[in-house]
Amino acid sequence: MSSLLPKSIQNLIDEFSRLPGIGPKTAERLAIHLLHSPHSKIVGLGESVLNMKEGVEFCARCWHLSDEALCHVCRDEARNAAVICVVEHVLDVVAIEKSRAFSGVYHVLHGVLSPMDGIGPEDLKLYELEKRVKEGDIREIVLAVNPSVEGETTALYITKMLRPYDGVRVTRIARGLPVGGELGYADESTISRAIVGRMGVE
Amino acid sequence: MSSLLPKSIQNLIDEFSRLPGIGPKTAERLAIHLLHSPHSKIVGLGESVLNMKEGVEFCARCWHLSDEALCHVCRDEARNAAVICVVEHVLDVVAIEKSRAFSGVYHVLHGVLSPMDGIGPEDLKLYELEKRVKEGDIREIVLAVNPSVEGETTALYITKMLRPYDGVRVTRIARGLPVGGELGYADESTISRAIVGRMGVE
Repeated sequence: MSSLLPKSIQNLIDEFSRLPGIGPKTAERLAIHLLHSPHSKIVGLGESVLNMKEGVEFCARCWHLSDEALCHVCRDEARNAAVICVVEHVLDVVAIEKSRAFSGVYHVLHGVLSPMDGIGPEDLKLYELEKRVKEGDIREIVLAVNPSVEGETTALYITKMLRPYDGVRVTRIARGLPVGGELGYADESTISRAIVGRMGVE
Repeated sequence: MSSLLPKSIQNLIDEFSRLPGIGPKTAERLAIHLLHSPHSKIVGLGESVLNMKEGVEFCARCWHLSDEALCHVCRDEARNAAVICVVEHVLDVVAIEKSRAFSGVYHVLHGVLSPMDGIGPEDLKLYELEKRVKEGDIREIVLAVNPSVEGETTALYITKMLRPYDGVRVTRIARGLPVGGELGYADESTISRAIVGRMGVE
């Protein structure tokens, strides 16, 4: 079957297929789309891939991706540096920033505790988080890890880790029905969380 | 919003987003996935994109993609060169080849007639098809264009175009219920085609 298409196109299809969420059919379609695209588009994509790590580093304070030693959030003096939102991944920072609902700073763990996958505390940026709490003037840690088993484990670990630090409040972002979600379609666990987390109507 | 991620990563996300079927969220996830991939994988993808057209040409006979002057199907002497299957696109050849149900050769139109989009007969490889019929020893033309309005128009055009050539039978691949499809979920037009195209049970 490998000879159905020219080698260089088959190579590209194979590379696309190795990306998460891209099956062989989509990979074929992407390759043929590019083949019919102007040369500049092909070069644009190819070079963007090759140069993707150029100038990219991790923020020395919060471990978000950055162009400079400190990321754009940590550099921003208007942000409340006493409130740290702890997230699993870089894209979680992007998602929260897009909501424009948070004015503090971040700490990216780069994963969650997952003993099954051999991921322990030393594999995450947990020590770095404790260091920030120990050395900085931190008032609140907002846990925004995902509501998975691993997320819960990680949240519990951080809560315990920060217990010795008086004056640091540990909170969790609310879980409940998503906006636009319908009760009839929500799972029991979400409904249960939504009821437990109910708030007084102003 | 453009400063949420380093510029080189945002560039890559933008390039991915321009591909068909890839939305901004998927583009973000692909970029971050690559960022955490080994260097060799990034280079592999980037260079496959840049080199995708290397050595690629169109088959001088059937207009399929090829590594050489003639494609692997046209080069294969075991194929029945008297039966030509006419398809819209290169990937249709790949799909039919994977079915292993066709032993003839192909002719890729590279599109369908679509007056609305300004695509007329001169934009497709129709003249080249007629030339093959005129000059070769062709017994059957199997129309495998898609069952769309444009596909029907194109099929009709080809049927008329080939009418002067006695001894050349024009056929169409069958339309009906897909294997595994259920009558209750099929649209009326498919059911109607399936009934019209019914065959005697052996």
